[in-house]
Amino acid sequence: MGTPDQNAPDFPLAPPIEAVAWLNATAPQTLDGLRGRVVVLEAFQMLCPGCVAHGLPQATRVFETFSHDDVAVIGLHTVFEHHEAQTPVALEAFLSEYRIRFPVGIDAPGGGHDLPRTMARFAMQGTPTLVLIDALGRRRAQHFGTVPDLQLGAEIMALVAEARAHRQPDPSHAA
Amino acid sequence: MGTPDQNAPDFPLAPPIEAVAWLNATAPQTLDGLRGRVVVLEAFQMLCPGCVAHGLPQATRVFETFSHDDVAVIGLHTVFEHHEAQTPVALEAFLSEYRIRFPVGIDAPGGGHDLPRTMARFAMQGTPTLVLIDALGRRRAQHFGTVPDLQLGAEIMALVAEARAHRQPDPSHAA
Amino acid sequence: MGTPDQNAPDFPLAPPIEAVAWLNATAPQTLDGLRGRVVVLEAFQMLCPGCVAHGLPQATRVFETFSHDDVAVIGLHTVFEHHEAQTPVALEAFLSEYRIRFPVGIDAPGGGHDLPRTMARFAMQGTPTLVLIDALGRRRAQHFGTVPDLQLGAEIMALVAEARAHRQPDPSHAA
Amino acid sequence: MGTPDQNAPDFPLAPPIEAVAWLNATAPQTLDGLRGRVVVLEAFQMLCPGCVAHGLPQATRVFETFSHDDVAVIGLHTVFEHHEAQTPVALEAFLSEYRIRFPVGIDAPGGGHDLPRTMARFAMQGTPTLVLIDALGRRRAQHFGTVPDLQLGAEIMALVAEARAHRQPDPSHAA
Repeated sequence: MGTPDQNAPDFPLAPPIEAVAWLNATAPQTLDGLRGRVVVLEAFQMLCPGCVAHGLPQATRVFETFSHDDVAVIGLHTVFEHHEAQTPVALEAFLSEYRIRFPVGIDAPGGGHDLPRTMARFAMQGTPTLVLIDALGRRRAQHFGTVPDLQLGAEIMALVAEARAHRQPDPSHAA
Repeated sequence: MGTPDQNAPDFPLAPPIEAVAWLNATAPQTLDGLRGRVVVLEAFQMLCPGCVAHGLPQATRVFETFSHDDVAVIGLHTVFEHHEAQTPVALEAFLSEYRIRFPVGIDAPGGGHDLPRTMARFAMQGTPTLVLIDALGRRRAQHFGTVPDLQLGAEIMALVAEARAHRQPDPSHAA
Repeated sequence: MGTPDQNAPDFPLAPPIEAVAWLNATAPQTLDGLRGRVVVLEAFQMLCPGCVAHGLPQATRVFETFSHDDVAVIGLHTVFEHHEAQTPVALEAFLSEYRIRFPVGIDAPGGGHDLPRTMARFAMQGTPTLVLIDALGRRRAQHFGTVPDLQLGAEIMALVAEARAHRQPDPSHAA
Repeated sequence: MGTPDQNAPDFPLAPPIEAVAWLNATAPQTLDGLRGRVVVLEAFQMLCPGCVAHGLPQATRVFETFSHDDVAVIGLHTVFEHHEAQTPVALEAFLSEYRIRFPVGIDAPGGGHDLPRTMARFAMQGTPTLVLIDALGRRRAQHFGTVPDLQLGAEIMALVAEARAHRQPDPSHAA
């Protein structure tokens, strides 16, 4: 399995999220502000069938399975089609109906026919896309489409374990 | 999530597996011989519906997802009912039909109405039961019934990360 | 199983559908115009999770399984909440993304807090609701929530068989 | 959909079932004895994964959905491989574990490498195979592998409706 290499020193920082508004959050979420935690970023569109059937339910399972001290789940509404349908007010109704509780940002429009800004910065190929960002803010994995739960659980925990190791300067792993 | 505490020094060793025969293996498997790898032990019965529908397919996913250098998957046929039906020859046919490739031991009969011996030593409540054993041979988790893939992937990777940390005496996790 | 009684002579006619617009159709659909065929009416809302996960996929299976000479499938968008999100332009995007091919009417708004008009006439309790109308235009079954495929297939075929029997004045079922 | 033509007069009678024993039944089941009812014959092997995952659960749904006055569900254990594993005593344990309640016959061995006798008479290609027999004892459909519930429900009801029409000499279908 292609789990992240825990000691590779050279993963670049993830680009910042540029959202015009946030739902399910009392303040804007930033990757800088989430430093110290593993971030699972779920990019979706509310009218994307694969997002509704697979991506978002999986993100909800991550949100409900891992400690929020270890893992932050962030949704990002990256509208690149059907703009007139996938409006902020429609998104709000959608999140309510689908009982999505984690913070969801609305990606900044790109202007004209351009992709929304965060989607473009991450070079996402479409929706759903799941991005794993480690506790140091580095992008460690990016999955377009579906990723099996077993693999995702392992990938997230590899980053959590790495973060825990960093937090303890004296790793005397007693046996 | 109840992931194993990576630094707890006091987990007892798992009891040994006592099998009368092995299928899908050229030699008997022992936990001592698997030391250094995380072991996922799947106890099942071939006529147990929950094993067939959930436990064994999940064990197969583990077998196909993780590196065999990191994780060993071992099946254990713990027959405690329908002995006349769940015979070794029947098990062999079953493994062939269900395309199960990992080694499977036949738990030693307990005598009379007693549970089979390994099942009794592990104090298993029934089938399917999934046991996680760390690279030092210690029992770290035991699940009776179903456990979600996302949680299991995380639990296995927590032990894999721990094992990797042990293997490298100078854990200079460069950032 | 509560299949319709084929010979009961006293089922009242289904009320008419009052739609303000039709998608996937070149002309408005009416139950009178569909007389002679069994009609499967699927009332839904595009942001109703049960409609998206179960009701609409089942309606699509009906559309793809039965001959269109025997069975007409009609969708009805009965918006009774989130009006600002479930607009006609949003519905059009939704039908495109979910590849729904059968005609879909937009139920006439009820005014104020009232239910949409067709929904009210049929006394539907919510969405999804599936209504079976026989070839004579009579309402024969109405299911709120999910109905198993096996049962639904039988209920539809009972009405199709009844319609066929009506069409042939000399039912000499040779053995 | 390829539903049976209700008026085709020339379907041959299904061959008889030749079973050496019956489980879940107080007496041997015969197609002659079931005349007047639609018969759903589910041929399976207890170690056939497709039978366990799809064929038998579907047969159970048929058993639980349709009136037993209209539809009889009959299982047939057609062992053509792994004879030493799929014994009568093993089958009995299997039916108990999987809570299969309908009568199950054990197909008569064919001798040597031959297929079991009923399986050969019906020219079945493998397991699972589902056979539909009408109320007059005629074979009307035979499905090797899976058949969707919606289609199967319709096929069964077409035969039930036909049987009901036969039972009433004066089919005054009042409108």
